[in-house]
Amino acid sequence: MRKYFLLLLAMPFIAAAQTNQDSVFIKNLSDEIMRNGKAYDWLRELTKGIGGRLAGSPQFAKAVQWGKKTMETTKGDKVFLQECMVPHWVRGGKDKVVITSVDNKAISKALDALALGNSIGTGLKGLTAEVIALNNFDELEKRKDEIKGKIVLFNYPFNPTYIVPSRSYGEAGAYRRGGPSKAAKYGAVAVLTRSLTEATDNNPHTGATAYDTTLPKIPCAALGTQDADYLYKLATASKVKVSITTNGHFLPDTIGHNVIGEIKGTEFPNQYITFGGHLDSWDINEGAHDDGTGVVQAIEVMRALVAVGYKPKHTLRFVLFANEENGGRGGNKYAEAAKANNEEHILAIESDEGGFTPRGFSFTSSPEQLQKANTWLPLLKPYGTETMGSGGGGADIGPLKTLLKTPIAGFVPDNQRYFDIHHARTDVFENVNKRELLLGAVNIAGLIYLVDKYGL
Amino acid sequence: MRKYFLLLLAMPFIAAAQTNQDSVFIKNLSDEIMRNGKAYDWLRELTKGIGGRLAGSPQFAKAVQWGKKTMETTKGDKVFLQECMVPHWVRGGKDKVVITSVDNKAISKALDALALGNSIGTGLKGLTAEVIALNNFDELEKRKDEIKGKIVLFNYPFNPTYIVPSRSYGEAGAYRRGGPSKAAKYGAVAVLTRSLTEATDNNPHTGATAYDTTLPKIPCAALGTQDADYLYKLATASKVKVSITTNGHFLPDTIGHNVIGEIKGTEFPNQYITFGGHLDSWDINEGAHDDGTGVVQAIEVMRALVAVGYKPKHTLRFVLFANEENGGRGGNKYAEAAKANNEEHILAIESDEGGFTPRGFSFTSSPEQLQKANTWLPLLKPYGTETMGSGGGGADIGPLKTLLKTPIAGFVPDNQRYFDIHHARTDVFENVNKRELLLGAVNIAGLIYLVDKYGL
Repeated sequence: MRKYFLLLLAMPFIAAAQTNQDSVFIKNLSDEIMRNGKAYDWLRELTKGIGGRLAGSPQFAKAVQWGKKTMETTKGDKVFLQECMVPHWVRGGKDKVVITSVDNKAISKALDALALGNSIGTGLKGLTAEVIALNNFDELEKRKDEIKGKIVLFNYPFNPTYIVPSRSYGEAGAYRRGGPSKAAKYGAVAVLTRSLTEATDNNPHTGATAYDTTLPKIPCAALGTQDADYLYKLATASKVKVSITTNGHFLPDTIGHNVIGEIKGTEFPNQYITFGGHLDSWDINEGAHDDGTGVVQAIEVMRALVAVGYKPKHTLRFVLFANEENGGRGGNKYAEAAKANNEEHILAIESDEGGFTPRGFSFTSSPEQLQKANTWLPLLKPYGTETMGSGGGGADIGPLKTLLKTPIAGFVPDNQRYFDIHHARTDVFENVNKRELLLGAVNIAGLIYLVDKYGL
Repeated sequence: MRKYFLLLLAMPFIAAAQTNQDSVFIKNLSDEIMRNGKAYDWLRELTKGIGGRLAGSPQFAKAVQWGKKTMETTKGDKVFLQECMVPHWVRGGKDKVVITSVDNKAISKALDALALGNSIGTGLKGLTAEVIALNNFDELEKRKDEIKGKIVLFNYPFNPTYIVPSRSYGEAGAYRRGGPSKAAKYGAVAVLTRSLTEATDNNPHTGATAYDTTLPKIPCAALGTQDADYLYKLATASKVKVSITTNGHFLPDTIGHNVIGEIKGTEFPNQYITFGGHLDSWDINEGAHDDGTGVVQAIEVMRALVAVGYKPKHTLRFVLFANEENGGRGGNKYAEAAKANNEEHILAIESDEGGFTPRGFSFTSSPEQLQKANTWLPLLKPYGTETMGSGGGGADIGPLKTLLKTPIAGFVPDNQRYFDIHHARTDVFENVNKRELLLGAVNIAGLIYLVDKYGL
């Protein structure tokens, strides 16, 4: 009894000492990253040196070699490539959308457009048809008899009153993903969508569409918000014809790779904590925030943990996924291999909401796991993590959840300006801030350390 | 007794109902600002239409007229100008810093420089002298016998490991403020300082210096970080001569104005809640984040409160202060007038850390007042306010604290990228994000509403 009593007395001190030890370790890790971090220079290499790198492209193959070589400089225990088949969609040339007549009077006014990823092209001769301007799917249903032979413009905007912009993206995104097939169902010949952004400029934003395979596939492209508003007003007041020329098509599936780095676990080598971002990007920009920043954060966290001499209990995996944007094959492959190898995965984290100032993490896990993560808030708060919420994850780590029931977490940066540049030509290196990028790595490294030390 | 008991039972419901009412009101305010906010368009007018507006300049006088006219569009109860004398420093031409010889070999390499605000000039002929490169004041003391007749370069950097960048600014800022006089004490003829930034570009950052009036005033200018490092290395290894030409000087003090808008209090009209930013900016940029964003947030909050039909208990004041950058006369005048008029001030808030995503507020108040503010966190958290800390305020509202013991609070945005552009040519409209700017206004409006309703 007395022994127990003493132990109980001692426990708060033990806990306090541990907390202090953790706090010192995380400060050390933070200093290493903020002082010696290479993520920003690596991002310059990836974005300026290689640029856009859609899965299957020669640029993506270069990025794989760059990722492997760069990971090797961290002097972790192992770097390897995990092969997977990836889709190979190509844009095939310049996308063109031109207003050709207004109330039967010929004009020629070009709009700035980008074909949606995975879409079919019009062929080199293009197609010309009358535009029907709609706000949303309800209007499509109401006017379904007017759709046949026309180009449907969906001008559904972001809701500016949502404080979390990914909520707007999810909602308006329904038109990019499902709009073409919904319009094809009523005989539309092509679809133009309003770009998924609240940006005040007119840059179009691409991104994958998803055809309903039971319906005819029709060409589709995104317009910048200014052009979308312009065309909407024009086509609401007048009879407007538009000519669309896009050349997107699929080449045969080809070989791609996840790039994987490891720091071997000293106690539980077959138990894994995974952190990653995706190496592929759209073809029309540098893929800086999407997801160059996630990529270089993964390598940076690996580098920093090695640099401070950390010996993890569990094996830490840093993964540059092969094909987030238009297929998800990299994430699927990683989870399938993990299952085949009987790996036990404790947690997977993804950084794919931009390399902005950290605000926290969002978990898809049991309530107990989330509660445990929340006990670490005081340790990470000095570095920016304010919340450990629920509902998050990432497209590349989702399959781990599905196949292995692995708890997953998304890194949540302050992404108020993410959709200004997301999938647009403006997602370039210059729009990434070095401190914000490194601070993200600090918080992720801190969480990985805590999960490794205390489990989840 | 029974009555009391029932009252006690009812209290949580009353409190919950109030909280719910507050939450609905703040959501309404947020929707008004995010949907109809004019702050971003106003900022374009101020930055692109008027531009740099140092106190005393013709541009500042234009900004006063613009501020008054714009505030009047909000249909608040009253807009007026409060006259105050302001200093009138002018740069007087292009600042030049040129390396003229290395180890007595003539060269001509221009460095990008900006004279520090309030500094004296070299005269049109410039001055040329040998450079002594120092890291900090300790080195100055150790080498005080070598200073005479030389140009001192202080190359003290931001500490990258500080998570809060204003800590770096405060620390390194000692060299901009006090460096020239400390060097003059030992006979230096001029001072060059490393710009107060961690930016990866080479833009010099100006800002006010403060001469010790008991010592000779010497010319001083800031170099971009790349040039500062370059000159430091060069002058450490070789005998380097530099020629400096700056033309800064004071014209006689002139008339300036605070621009003040009011929404009259319905219950306590002589009790005030003040919110503001400063209308003046440096001459070499557009003063977008510093402090155009604070200015347009003040007008926006006024507009939104009127637009939703709010009738405050206390009088709400929205103030565009006249002279933060190089004198503080606007803030002094406002506090002196408040004292002279026996006004009672409940709280003053300032937004002068950039128009970035809100993270919270920082109070200089009693612990009880801070505690009370913290009870409102759940109401503001959905809009971004994560912390109500202590120690903050603002240069323009400081005098209210001093003269009237008014509690003050600084709006705290996510300012990781603030010092990239602060006082540099790059502080322009394009570097402000519309959503981030408006979200700041939402959180400030929410706090003002809560303080008005519940006191502090």
